Amino acid sequence: MSLDKEAAVDLKAYLKDKRALIEQFIEGYFKEPIAPETLHEAMKYSLLAGGKRIRPVLCLTAYETCGGDGGDILPQAAAIELIHTYSLIHDDLPAMDDDDLRRGKPTNHVIYGEAMAILAGDGLLTEAFRMFSASETISPAILLSALRELSSAAGLFGMVAGQAMDIISEGKAHDVKTLQFIHRNKTAALLKASVRIGGILFNAGQASMSPLDAYGEAIGMAFQIVDDILDITATTEELGKPHGSDENKNKMTYPAIFGIERSKAMAKEQIDMALQAADCLGPKAHWFKEIANYLLERSN
Amino acid sequence: MSLDKEAAVDLKAYLKDKRALIEQFIEGYFKEPIAPETLHEAMKYSLLAGGKRIRPVLCLTAYETCGGDGGDILPQAAAIELIHTYSLIHDDLPAMDDDDLRRGKPTNHVIYGEAMAILAGDGLLTEAFRMFSASETISPAILLSALRELSSAAGLFGMVAGQAMDIISEGKAHDVKTLQFIHRNKTAALLKASVRIGGILFNAGQASMSPLDAYGEAIGMAFQIVDDILDITATTEELGKPHGSDENKNKMTYPAIFGIERSKAMAKEQIDMALQAADCLGPKAHWFKEIANYLLERSN
Repeated sequence: MSLDKEAAVDLKAYLKDKRALIEQFIEGYFKEPIAPETLHEAMKYSLLAGGKRIRPVLCLTAYETCGGDGGDILPQAAAIELIHTYSLIHDDLPAMDDDDLRRGKPTNHVIYGEAMAILAGDGLLTEAFRMFSASETISPAILLSALRELSSAAGLFGMVAGQAMDIISEGKAHDVKTLQFIHRNKTAALLKASVRIGGILFNAGQASMSPLDAYGEAIGMAFQIVDDILDITATTEELGKPHGSDENKNKMTYPAIFGIERSKAMAKEQIDMALQAADCLGPKAHWFKEIANYLLERSN
Repeated sequence: MSLDKEAAVDLKAYLKDKRALIEQFIEGYFKEPIAPETLHEAMKYSLLAGGKRIRPVLCLTAYETCGGDGGDILPQAAAIELIHTYSLIHDDLPAMDDDDLRRGKPTNHVIYGEAMAILAGDGLLTEAFRMFSASETISPAILLSALRELSSAAGLFGMVAGQAMDIISEGKAHDVKTLQFIHRNKTAALLKASVRIGGILFNAGQASMSPLDAYGEAIGMAFQIVDDILDITATTEELGKPHGSDENKNKMTYPAIFGIERSKAMAKEQIDMALQAADCLGPKAHWFKEIANYLLERSN
């Protein structure tokens, strides 16, 4: 399925607009000096290195699909991007995936050294919760509930657990159960939480939360399957990181277990489920559908 | 000044009692399995390795000095200990202070490897905010305000900034301004926040918050000066980590700049200030005074 060209142009403008909102917020937030300067620079280096900003965009889209104005939850959406960025810095460390290239630039520890990269990650993670916890529009009880969703998905019931399993299972015999654990936790959990947090912050009822949950789960799983496929099919230039690095590290991936064609079909299945879920959200879920198609068709 | 013997016995029982409350809470909290098991074990290894638990004890003491029952804020007090533990794991990493011994046991990365130690730290930090954000007794608005205090002190306006400056200034010419920045941020900030958070959670007014703030600041600074002195005067056995390691790493410390005798006098000055602040908190600040004296006289 290829994107309708007009929709693609619209979506491109939509994503650009939302990304700009997030990036302006983050730049403004980190404008004030932080001592020591090297720590400040190391954090900004990775935070402002580009990227799709897909997590905060999903959060804003969920909030607006429910009927809110995304401008009201910029600190919360941006905080998710801080957490995503910290996770990239720590994942790239020599002791972890040992990657030198990310988004076409040297990774954080290559520029600032391992100690500063660890601290830049720790600083972003801690600051994310500070950023998330202040709001002029969202009530404290709702904010706390959303913060608990974020800390679950980013930590022991999501990303950290997934990354730990990924490290442990490197070079081991591939099995589907472990592969699914890794993907569900390492990648899908935070993507799903990004969607859910938008709904929680709007105080959406079950009629909206159920499809948001299903949509988030499906695109989260699809996202990582597509990532696994792109690691093989895309060039280093397109990826901004070395082509074929999963295979080189003997990582457990969908193509390694199911082959590329079946993996593509599985990603498509997930996206179809996401589109179905979006249908339950009414006409405002238009952007959710276009984002789902874009995540399937993306080349980086 | 030596401790009155009777008071010392009382204080020992008091600290033991509070420590037990915290440790029981943490053990119960981490009883349920977390996958992968190695991550779970790595976190528990450092969390349950003993230690003074001085930060949660200070938090409970502040809350009770204001008139509350510490049992109501165990999740919040324990969350501070999770953050302290994560910071020890990351500080000990080869890329940071490269320490092999902590509390008389091999450090986390020596047992579980660097990748798992980084993730155990990330997991504890993230879970701390989840743990902190749930309460059956504290109102959401107050909880959020206390959470912001914690994230400031643990992150870019405290511990992470202090550790970054410590790393940057290793081996550089010693200067008092940098030394004070490191101590204030790396150690004092979280100790002070532990005291303040107790007050904030009780919703204490300015008449209590001011002396709590002054007390926390003074014992925070004294704590690190005493740590610096003990690194030279105590044995490896007493410390549970190698004697003289600051000097070996050419760390900026109080004794390195001021000599041991003047450093001792400076610690004593801070403790006197803490005792004065405690006087403003009325008769219930009894334990605060004993803790201040204990922090000056401690041997590890």
